[in-house]
Amino acid sequence: MRDVDYIISGDYVLTMVDSVPPLRSGAIAVSDGKIVAIGDDKTIAAKYNPKTVVGGSGKAVMPGLFNTHTHAAMVYFRGIADDLPLREWLEKHIWPAERKWLSDEFVGDATELACCEMLKAGVTTFNDMYFFGDSSARAAKKMGMRAILGAGVLDFPNAAARNADEYIAKAERFIKNWLGDDLITPSIAPHAPYTCSPETYMKAKRVAERYGVPVHTHLSETEHEVNEITNKYGKPPVELLEEIGFLDASVVAAHCVWVNDREIEILAGRRTGVAHCIESNLKLAAGIAPVVSMLNKGVNVAFGSDGAASNNDLDIFSEMSFSARVHKAMSGDPTVINAFTALSMATSTGARVLGMGDKTGTLEIGKAADIVIVDLNKPHLTPFYDIYSLIVYSMRSTDVESVMVNGRLVVDLGKFIPKDEQEIMDKAWWWKNQIASAKNI
Amino acid sequence: MRDVDYIISGDYVLTMVDSVPPLRSGAIAVSDGKIVAIGDDKTIAAKYNPKTVVGGSGKAVMPGLFNTHTHAAMVYFRGIADDLPLREWLEKHIWPAERKWLSDEFVGDATELACCEMLKAGVTTFNDMYFFGDSSARAAKKMGMRAILGAGVLDFPNAAARNADEYIAKAERFIKNWLGDDLITPSIAPHAPYTCSPETYMKAKRVAERYGVPVHTHLSETEHEVNEITNKYGKPPVELLEEIGFLDASVVAAHCVWVNDREIEILAGRRTGVAHCIESNLKLAAGIAPVVSMLNKGVNVAFGSDGAASNNDLDIFSEMSFSARVHKAMSGDPTVINAFTALSMATSTGARVLGMGDKTGTLEIGKAADIVIVDLNKPHLTPFYDIYSLIVYSMRSTDVESVMVNGRLVVDLGKFIPKDEQEIMDKAWWWKNQIASAKNI
Repeated sequence: MRDVDYIISGDYVLTMVDSVPPLRSGAIAVSDGKIVAIGDDKTIAAKYNPKTVVGGSGKAVMPGLFNTHTHAAMVYFRGIADDLPLREWLEKHIWPAERKWLSDEFVGDATELACCEMLKAGVTTFNDMYFFGDSSARAAKKMGMRAILGAGVLDFPNAAARNADEYIAKAERFIKNWLGDDLITPSIAPHAPYTCSPETYMKAKRVAERYGVPVHTHLSETEHEVNEITNKYGKPPVELLEEIGFLDASVVAAHCVWVNDREIEILAGRRTGVAHCIESNLKLAAGIAPVVSMLNKGVNVAFGSDGAASNNDLDIFSEMSFSARVHKAMSGDPTVINAFTALSMATSTGARVLGMGDKTGTLEIGKAADIVIVDLNKPHLTPFYDIYSLIVYSMRSTDVESVMVNGRLVVDLGKFIPKDEQEIMDKAWWWKNQIASAKNI
Repeated sequence: MRDVDYIISGDYVLTMVDSVPPLRSGAIAVSDGKIVAIGDDKTIAAKYNPKTVVGGSGKAVMPGLFNTHTHAAMVYFRGIADDLPLREWLEKHIWPAERKWLSDEFVGDATELACCEMLKAGVTTFNDMYFFGDSSARAAKKMGMRAILGAGVLDFPNAAARNADEYIAKAERFIKNWLGDDLITPSIAPHAPYTCSPETYMKAKRVAERYGVPVHTHLSETEHEVNEITNKYGKPPVELLEEIGFLDASVVAAHCVWVNDREIEILAGRRTGVAHCIESNLKLAAGIAPVVSMLNKGVNVAFGSDGAASNNDLDIFSEMSFSARVHKAMSGDPTVINAFTALSMATSTGARVLGMGDKTGTLEIGKAADIVIVDLNKPHLTPFYDIYSLIVYSMRSTDVESVMVNGRLVVDLGKFIPKDEQEIMDKAWWWKNQIASAKNI
């Protein structure tokens, strides 16, 4: 008998390795943050002696979900200005609110709430783009969450910096602070082609290359911005970024709603991952990304919630359901993005898009123990004939019962472990009351 | 002090009466199944002496939700054949399964599970179309749910009857059995223009008229069926049913995905309500109903989940989120179907579509106490700036805490009261194992 930290078992263990079928009555042994064994529960129980047992009968076990595009701290602006067009929402509501409120304290507090919401919903890794990165990094680490945190870069001032060079200098300092951390990966995030010049893009890219960190950007979210860029540069955004040498596998491109066939081929060829944010894109009436065409051409597409100010949640279960359904109707083909594909996009492909495919995203020996346990014994999940279909079409994020990140149990039978949940929510309401009274809501 | 059965209070009481803003720190007094008072909580507490107090701080109170099109008993086929085209799904999987399995016992047991799922998700009324109606009526009544149960009519045999006349005779017997019940409204449900001749439609209609009961039908769900009907009769389905004199305010038309402008005007003119089933329509790639155009032309549009075999849930919260988002992208206008409109469609309009607008659907004195209490004190609901936006874009059906139908508390702090939930689920698994072993799943 080998001593291990945990045995996690369930009626179904979904490794999300492509050709491996669901393991019935399976179990996983976890030690020192890593998966050390996977097999049927009796065999694992006979070989390993755990400190703690998690899961059991009536549960399913699967990899943690990936939120590949968000602005976590914007959770404090949840629903601050709904049912409005993107540009009006952004320029009249969000940017002014950000200029007024963003600070180390705001971002730290808000990121704690976002991590709590995401972890309880089974998201174990998020890819962020925002400002005051040291604060969000400290918050994410304290909450026990895996995160890539992109230091935002703009060509105009906000609360974080005055111009592109200052944003980039701050980003470089932030990257140096967090390089080598086991949970936090620093990155740099030029905001979008309509807010950053090609020069700014390439300055940011050079910093990323210097430190070997990922890059995160918004790309072709609205038809309006694509027209603007095409008028200005004579080519659409993906072609523009390709021409200046920006695109490669280190880049995560969020949205990609308005991309033509040639641009999809560029993204596939450069192995640039796409963060598909369907709920946000629908709600802002931005459009519907041609995801089926991207998948057919070999682009890695994963899910992003975008910020809670445009979504208004950070829920990857609902992104799966929206994506698996909406693209069927758009393509007139009910066989596209089947349930297994949708769950793969949320897990293994999520990890691949973020450049973490060797480390997490599937349940395999040697990988980080980023694991979600869901409770199947509920009326709305009863009965079922296919476990993938159940997860994608019937399950809610609220069915997540326990969550482990890097071998640490951060949600245990619904209870958030890293910090008192009520304290996190009380702080959120304190901030909200400040914001709302200033805004006269 | 007047004695009442319940006082239900919350930080927000949403009456869903059009011009009434959310009542802050509000309360409702309930007696003998009806709402007897609404006001601020202190005033209500001073005037009424309740047997039981429900809700309180951190809660919102709103009308029960309406599921205006479902096949409740199909919950036993949840996910039996996913990611397939509608005709293949229906003809190769669902109809054969129904022919083999449907019986009084199956329908009764399955309807109990469906009611449990719906009530826990805040649905207090459903409009059903299925077979073995006496069994579903007994089950719904026992579970304490309000239901309109449409006895299905087809031109071909299934487990319930051999031909249209037999279906109709059975429907008439069923209507007589349940006429006048306080929770159950019997109705008749000619299945669709591609499965029922115009003669069958009008025979069914005559029965409905004889007893003054509603009518329920599928209408223009797929492009294929619209082409088939147009080729056969020289006009599309809505025009066909208009011509034969079938359409009026007693009819609920499910789907209406493929309707032209003239047909939308017919539906508006006849005050025929539409059950919009966006999740099912997307998943089967049937298409997206022109709901914005319907609303603009004055059609009453409410939400339906369709059966759990095509959805795969019976969740009206998620229908709200899908509808409010998808129609924004389809129309390119993020202001359409705002949060208040979406919640109205799920409540007050739902009641109106089902011909129950005078009885339920809003929180008003004299109306039935069909009430949902949701818990707001959760990370994914914190903070918020607008309560309607929170409910439509951030809330999950699993945030429902307590539910009252006709003055009876059927879900109390998450616990299902009418019957042991585990017993309902165990029975579902017994049936599922029968079905799956016969089908070799």
